[in-house]
Amino acid sequence: MRIAIDAMGGDKAPYINIEGAVMAAREFGYDIVLVGNNTIIQQELFKKGVNAPKSISVCHASEVISMDEPAALSVRRKRDSSINVGARLLRDGKVDAFVSAGNTGAVVCAVALRMGLLKGVYRPGISMIYPTLKDLCVLIDVGANISPKPEHLLQYGIMGDALQRHLLNKKVVKVGLLNVGGEEAKGTDFMKETHRLLNSSVLKFIGNVEGGDIYTGEYDVIVCDGFVGNVVLKVSESLAHTLAIFLKRKLKEGIMTQIGALLSMPAFNALKKEIDYSEYGGAPLLGVSGVTIIGHGGSSAKAIKNAIKEAAEFVELQINQHIMDAIAL
Amino acid sequence: MRIAIDAMGGDKAPYINIEGAVMAAREFGYDIVLVGNNTIIQQELFKKGVNAPKSISVCHASEVISMDEPAALSVRRKRDSSINVGARLLRDGKVDAFVSAGNTGAVVCAVALRMGLLKGVYRPGISMIYPTLKDLCVLIDVGANISPKPEHLLQYGIMGDALQRHLLNKKVVKVGLLNVGGEEAKGTDFMKETHRLLNSSVLKFIGNVEGGDIYTGEYDVIVCDGFVGNVVLKVSESLAHTLAIFLKRKLKEGIMTQIGALLSMPAFNALKKEIDYSEYGGAPLLGVSGVTIIGHGGSSAKAIKNAIKEAAEFVELQINQHIMDAIAL
Repeated sequence: MRIAIDAMGGDKAPYINIEGAVMAAREFGYDIVLVGNNTIIQQELFKKGVNAPKSISVCHASEVISMDEPAALSVRRKRDSSINVGARLLRDGKVDAFVSAGNTGAVVCAVALRMGLLKGVYRPGISMIYPTLKDLCVLIDVGANISPKPEHLLQYGIMGDALQRHLLNKKVVKVGLLNVGGEEAKGTDFMKETHRLLNSSVLKFIGNVEGGDIYTGEYDVIVCDGFVGNVVLKVSESLAHTLAIFLKRKLKEGIMTQIGALLSMPAFNALKKEIDYSEYGGAPLLGVSGVTIIGHGGSSAKAIKNAIKEAAEFVELQINQHIMDAIAL
Repeated sequence: MRIAIDAMGGDKAPYINIEGAVMAAREFGYDIVLVGNNTIIQQELFKKGVNAPKSISVCHASEVISMDEPAALSVRRKRDSSINVGARLLRDGKVDAFVSAGNTGAVVCAVALRMGLLKGVYRPGISMIYPTLKDLCVLIDVGANISPKPEHLLQYGIMGDALQRHLLNKKVVKVGLLNVGGEEAKGTDFMKETHRLLNSSVLKFIGNVEGGDIYTGEYDVIVCDGFVGNVVLKVSESLAHTLAIFLKRKLKEGIMTQIGALLSMPAFNALKKEIDYSEYGGAPLLGVSGVTIIGHGGSSAKAIKNAIKEAAEFVELQINQHIMDAIAL
């Protein structure tokens, strides 16, 4: 298993990325190719001393696409950026998968451009795997395609279904459509047409999902357009963070509540771990040929490590073959 | 001050609604008109005994629009529903404001139909007032208009600004546009055009807001289309609920954490109160002539009481006049 990791992408790159890569190489024994500025990466590896595993190599990329550059333009202009070089390693078969916590739009663009889409797929979609009150759920798309057509959303349902079945081992996959009301006739014309398509597909389509049902675990795959999905992803993350700050403020107000907080700490930590995206790896980019995992911009070393592990599983379990089989049906 | 309350609307109607109305009549001395089935309301008032204030009267409505009926159709067909009767009381000047926790779409439809829009306003919008890490913020629209045009969103910005200034006493109102990235060129063509309009308006427009910035308090008004706003509203509510369940599960796992939870209880309760929508009343329907507050479907008696109070403030502070003045600029 040989995996390329974009050493330069993400808010804490390259240090965190390199640390995560070293952890993955040690723990799982994969060959890791760090893509990025050779001098910087070598210095960082040197700091980590003689213990840096032999299975880690470097592939030089002289440029970096920053987190807020326009995606398509930067991919075209910065041909030697770590994202482009990583995508080319994937295209040339030099690695089995590519992991990047960099500019999401640029990763989607570079990989789709170099690898093309899986046979029969119209558009790539980014899938988020997240915990609910029951099992893990897949939300797709969370930002690859902000102006989708109904048939794109149908395919997101099919791809999400394949991910649940073959990566997460779910036997019966319940699919829902994120909408503003439960009834069939709710939402925009776009939503009504998507509802119709999903309803007449082979999927176990349960119907419309409201925002309030995203975390109940009643659905295994929730389909939405990339604009709404992106907002949901970011709102959820920030709300969890905001509530933690609110609670901390309140706990600090009394001496008894401070003692209570100390005693409760293991529970807070367990909760933090349960909802921490870094435990679940990154967001698989579905629909493109070749395996790409998009890491969170704020990824920790552990998140990078788990994204690498997820990429390897994605390869081993041949998820892309399963997606193609499902799309061809 | 005379306020009509839809006695039949909401998940726990009519009991909770009547209780909230009685609380508001006692606490604030408003005249309250309970709109709904006379027999049921009288029975319920009778149960509350001699203490039911004289300032409460009943206006009979023989029909009820349920929470999941198609909005426009039910408003047309159920002419004697509590929502339609309430809207007519408002039109005929028999009350100063109308409060309903019923079918949101039907309330918007009935009130807009009977009252018309404020001079110069293209579309009504529902505004949600919610707590952030700093001050209260207004998110608009959260569901009145799921296929808006850019000029509608510009007006939502203007109406939200007026609400912040005149209801919430904010001196400098920072306005943002909910989008999928911080940069000007981000998002759909619709978003780009809306960005341009907001940017050349008289508002203090700060730029795009990402989902992760909704709770930071860096913005006082966040403008979005009703589809996205509705999803944000419901996701936020359900995520707070889900996190509480997760935390309870974790706290129950050890004896020390259970003791800690007991000691921390005052902080949990304070947090619950801080993020509880019922503390903030309901969601003002902006852009229609006449004052209408839309309560949460799951409203408690306290939420109904606070929505009634909010309606009275909205009338007293002449928010609609301020909105018209701002739109005319």
